[in-house]
Amino acid sequence: MKPKRIAIVGASGYSGEELVRLLLNHPQAELVAVTSRQYAGQTLAQIFPRFANHPKAKALRFSEPNADVLTKQADIVFLALPHGVAAEYAVPLLDGGCTVIDLSADFRLRSTVVYKDFYAHDHPAPDLLAKATYGLPEVYREQIKKSQLIASPGCYPTSILLPTIPLLKAKLIKSAGIIADSLSGVSGAGRKAELDYLFVECNESVRPYGVPKHRHLSEIEQELSMAAGESVTIQFTPHLIPVNRGILTTLYLAPEKHFSTTEEMNSLNEKISVCYRAAYGNEPFVRLLEGKALPDTKNVVGTNVCEIAWRLDPRTGRLIVMSAEDNLVKGASGQAVQSMNILCGFPETAGLV
Amino acid sequence: MKPKRIAIVGASGYSGEELVRLLLNHPQAELVAVTSRQYAGQTLAQIFPRFANHPKAKALRFSEPNADVLTKQADIVFLALPHGVAAEYAVPLLDGGCTVIDLSADFRLRSTVVYKDFYAHDHPAPDLLAKATYGLPEVYREQIKKSQLIASPGCYPTSILLPTIPLLKAKLIKSAGIIADSLSGVSGAGRKAELDYLFVECNESVRPYGVPKHRHLSEIEQELSMAAGESVTIQFTPHLIPVNRGILTTLYLAPEKHFSTTEEMNSLNEKISVCYRAAYGNEPFVRLLEGKALPDTKNVVGTNVCEIAWRLDPRTGRLIVMSAEDNLVKGASGQAVQSMNILCGFPETAGLV
Amino acid sequence: MKPKRIAIVGASGYSGEELVRLLLNHPQAELVAVTSRQYAGQTLAQIFPRFANHPKAKALRFSEPNADVLTKQADIVFLALPHGVAAEYAVPLLDGGCTVIDLSADFRLRSTVVYKDFYAHDHPAPDLLAKATYGLPEVYREQIKKSQLIASPGCYPTSILLPTIPLLKAKLIKSAGIIADSLSGVSGAGRKAELDYLFVECNESVRPYGVPKHRHLSEIEQELSMAAGESVTIQFTPHLIPVNRGILTTLYLAPEKHFSTTEEMNSLNEKISVCYRAAYGNEPFVRLLEGKALPDTKNVVGTNVCEIAWRLDPRTGRLIVMSAEDNLVKGASGQAVQSMNILCGFPETAGLV
Amino acid sequence: MKPKRIAIVGASGYSGEELVRLLLNHPQAELVAVTSRQYAGQTLAQIFPRFANHPKAKALRFSEPNADVLTKQADIVFLALPHGVAAEYAVPLLDGGCTVIDLSADFRLRSTVVYKDFYAHDHPAPDLLAKATYGLPEVYREQIKKSQLIASPGCYPTSILLPTIPLLKAKLIKSAGIIADSLSGVSGAGRKAELDYLFVECNESVRPYGVPKHRHLSEIEQELSMAAGESVTIQFTPHLIPVNRGILTTLYLAPEKHFSTTEEMNSLNEKISVCYRAAYGNEPFVRLLEGKALPDTKNVVGTNVCEIAWRLDPRTGRLIVMSAEDNLVKGASGQAVQSMNILCGFPETAGLV
Repeated sequence: MKPKRIAIVGASGYSGEELVRLLLNHPQAELVAVTSRQYAGQTLAQIFPRFANHPKAKALRFSEPNADVLTKQADIVFLALPHGVAAEYAVPLLDGGCTVIDLSADFRLRSTVVYKDFYAHDHPAPDLLAKATYGLPEVYREQIKKSQLIASPGCYPTSILLPTIPLLKAKLIKSAGIIADSLSGVSGAGRKAELDYLFVECNESVRPYGVPKHRHLSEIEQELSMAAGESVTIQFTPHLIPVNRGILTTLYLAPEKHFSTTEEMNSLNEKISVCYRAAYGNEPFVRLLEGKALPDTKNVVGTNVCEIAWRLDPRTGRLIVMSAEDNLVKGASGQAVQSMNILCGFPETAGLV
Repeated sequence: MKPKRIAIVGASGYSGEELVRLLLNHPQAELVAVTSRQYAGQTLAQIFPRFANHPKAKALRFSEPNADVLTKQADIVFLALPHGVAAEYAVPLLDGGCTVIDLSADFRLRSTVVYKDFYAHDHPAPDLLAKATYGLPEVYREQIKKSQLIASPGCYPTSILLPTIPLLKAKLIKSAGIIADSLSGVSGAGRKAELDYLFVECNESVRPYGVPKHRHLSEIEQELSMAAGESVTIQFTPHLIPVNRGILTTLYLAPEKHFSTTEEMNSLNEKISVCYRAAYGNEPFVRLLEGKALPDTKNVVGTNVCEIAWRLDPRTGRLIVMSAEDNLVKGASGQAVQSMNILCGFPETAGLV
Repeated sequence: MKPKRIAIVGASGYSGEELVRLLLNHPQAELVAVTSRQYAGQTLAQIFPRFANHPKAKALRFSEPNADVLTKQADIVFLALPHGVAAEYAVPLLDGGCTVIDLSADFRLRSTVVYKDFYAHDHPAPDLLAKATYGLPEVYREQIKKSQLIASPGCYPTSILLPTIPLLKAKLIKSAGIIADSLSGVSGAGRKAELDYLFVECNESVRPYGVPKHRHLSEIEQELSMAAGESVTIQFTPHLIPVNRGILTTLYLAPEKHFSTTEEMNSLNEKISVCYRAAYGNEPFVRLLEGKALPDTKNVVGTNVCEIAWRLDPRTGRLIVMSAEDNLVKGASGQAVQSMNILCGFPETAGLV
Repeated sequence: MKPKRIAIVGASGYSGEELVRLLLNHPQAELVAVTSRQYAGQTLAQIFPRFANHPKAKALRFSEPNADVLTKQADIVFLALPHGVAAEYAVPLLDGGCTVIDLSADFRLRSTVVYKDFYAHDHPAPDLLAKATYGLPEVYREQIKKSQLIASPGCYPTSILLPTIPLLKAKLIKSAGIIADSLSGVSGAGRKAELDYLFVECNESVRPYGVPKHRHLSEIEQELSMAAGESVTIQFTPHLIPVNRGILTTLYLAPEKHFSTTEEMNSLNEKISVCYRAAYGNEPFVRLLEGKALPDTKNVVGTNVCEIAWRLDPRTGRLIVMSAEDNLVKGASGQAVQSMNILCGFPETAGLV
């Protein structure tokens, strides 16, 4: 199969850099263009020394982002841009025949009203929303195969949706009262020169932020509502912790069926296990922890894997589900490449192992 | 006032070391004995170089722990020992006339049944439970003044009880359904040579543990039940994060009174504010954050302060309360010294600012 | 004694914040003014939540820096400003009768030529250089007592000068060929919103910088030349390491006297020991490690102490001296307060223990 | 080509785990056995969750180390064992026809006298020393091709030898007076449950250790002496810094030829550049930094690359060379796999990119 020609627009941020890492080493993709206003003219090797020993890194130079040029160069364009800006590029790229995989929030929501509520400006390209596919392969694999515009999910949403959707679909948990408590590494804030993200401000510090209405709630609730078949509102609290990468999410869920005896608990536990195995038993990038182990970000950092474990609590009647992922891989760039693999007909794990 | 003579039993762990730091510099206390099986014969300066410039650190040597000897040396004895072991020392020390401030879990619970359920062995000194005072000064200040045996609270419990008790007492929140999600620095695990707490295993790692039944639940629920006037069961999930010190707790609470309009929300918010100010407005070691700021462990590390902030969420109807403390100070040794100050009639902030 | 009235100009950076911490708790100093263009109008409690429980932090507001106003408010003014800017404030403050303790490089050098060579602009106030005293108390205590203008040393210089000067003065080492290899925490770079100092860029990273001509060389060589009685040129390599605070310096020195037998080594070792004890045996802020221990930044962080240890290497004939200090305390603000204590006639350790 | 059957003895430490990572994904190697006394009977997936999604990780179980069994199972055996123990396994494995790649120090030295001096016990298999090849591919590539016993270099030695050997061979620097100042991540201490390597003891800490006679000096000096054609003694100071992985070495070297004018400096600089390019211009795992960039461990972590940069200092006449590597990859397991690739006739970069 002829390799696909790939461009990355906005390749100088953390998820852009992670896309570079994955696509430089992808067996069926050829990275042909990387853009960056700031670094235009410089080689990948100069800006990202860690890739400098890759032959292509010395040859490939950052260019100014230009949709017309990209349309001629590339079959597939990844957008690693801020929301609002991504849509501006998507329109001409799609018109020019490119497939677009957007890592921003611009095409994740189906409702322009919700978009404006959470992102505080009118949607820049409302006509495209109907064309976009939410790029969560474990849920939308078939749709991704036929899509020209992938809205790759946010990092927090991935860590919350993967553990929750199968339980909602199977009616094993109530759709009301869901709480997601998430801890994210600092790369989630992007490569931005702001005081809040200086080493000295983050090291030896742990803090919540964006309480109680973080932007990612909009896509989380949209997708949970789809899974539940009814409107879902959740509680979500993100925290910043001093690691480079990784998201750990702890979910507090209410089982549909009350359990009090050990027998009832074991039976419910078995149902959850069956549900998760049916959903993820054959998924290459979801790891169900069924023994004593609990998720730990250090076991997923650098990989496209999401770890999931759960515990029923007989004292409270609740189900606790915990997940871990690398925010830059399964939470961003790895998942975007996974979608690319699916829509190109490549093995889904190509370039991701 | 003549300075009190102080001994620390088990001074080689992290909370023991923190007691040494605080008591070496306390204006009305004289550290006369520190014990450690492992370091007996060596000076404080040798084992803790950071204190070596204090004149007393070169003179004071660790001794083998011996209750008879301690009884003669000291007026007040701090026990920084594992649970089960602490009680063994408390009995003869109390008999010998010492005041005992115990940092272990041995005297925190009123029920020997609950103790055995959570600590997996019979209580070693059940007769003493009735004599012990739970050393949370903001709640039990009057009782501490008259007590000879202080059970200083655990680190997680302090971070959960301080934000929750006033709301429960004021009937502003429901006593059912409370969730506490806590993040702790690694010093909380103690100075133990175990693989799990090696630098390489903790750095760039975030993980839950002890799910769903952590030992600290026993004292948390006992104290919340006291405040609520009814039996309280909570959900509690601790996580280990790569910082030396600090606990950040996020509490998910259900207001007694439903709110939907902005007016109702503002009114409820005002009630919470009034409640917290009444409880803590004059407390030297609780800091209410009433502006935009949220708690951050870096603002409390090294101090005896617990930061508290809250947010009402109109989307879910919940109250989110967040707290931050230093697990070794307000969560352990600082709080123990605060109790000492109270029972000795010293200014409550002596040696703690 | 009436407390001295103190102002801090440029109180929003890391060394400014550390000055605030030390001076808020100083028994004989009264902090009357803190300036910051950025934060003018806000209280100390708002900008530095960690100090918020101090009564003065709620009352004291940042003001715009204004030398005329400061002259009326304060007896002593600390300047925590960039080089070049500090001198602009020093001139009117000195004219107005204030004592000035400058933490910048502006008054550390005696030669305007060297200043221009290393700082790339003309000296802004050359007439003041003759009035300034290099504020290294262990070397210039008597001069500090009589000085109205203190040039407080840089962080790297302190960690290099304290271990080296006594050996040079005693002619125990050669003045040629000195190498200083230093490792600094990230706070040394200041509170600046630059990509290089983001958490993600510094964490899990170690890197040299400023090789081979770092600005601090100018004051290091000036002071070593004074000690040696001849011109000294050294090799100095700073590195950035992922800690908030702390400098660890390793010095490679050539003993004047060759040693080959064990006897000769022991004899030389004894001479070094005698030399260091004579220099620092009574110094409250230098800790000589004479046993097996080596310096560790964690033993000095938060204190005004500089740890020093040494080893003779019979294989190479060299003397290795290692030092550790907190770059913000003994390397900046603590040392500046130490100078203040000396010139005011306070106990030298006041507010520093 | 039929894949080689590979065994790892002592696969539970950090370099063993890194060998597992590299060999699970190697295109021409088949991992057939991993041994560990502690974990015998458990699968790779259970002990190393990060590899659990690899199909082989669920099937392959740790076994007790047994040389007879391994001889039948494997063509090539990696020994990731402590020194002294490695030799015990090497003897029967070599007798049984296996190729042995030893990551310990047991076969790195040519002299049993030096071994005893530095490792404090008699060499356990002196007859094998003549058979062993020092596995530094950039120096001994041809010898590795024909060797049945590879002594893979230590982590510090690799970071020192690669930058120094070409300069010594080309007589560009003096062989006397070499100083190597090295900073290592904590994984260099191994996965050992010791207090010194706890998170709380290493985080926010920087410290030298093993001064002045670290064991790695023995192999460093042996190899530098080979390169120089005369006996070389160096100064080496290792430091522990709070990162998981990475070694940064700063070398202080004396050029053979004195330089004082800019012209002389440029000429010497050009000679060094030519020398390094001749040595490493075609090496896949050495990266010469010739622009403004300096080595940074974050650019090599996870890779088999060693970065090298240098600066001439006209003020001191010295040459400063700096290198960065991942201590577990180029400093241990990656380099061992590189040797395997060479001796098996695989592409040298197989499994290492």
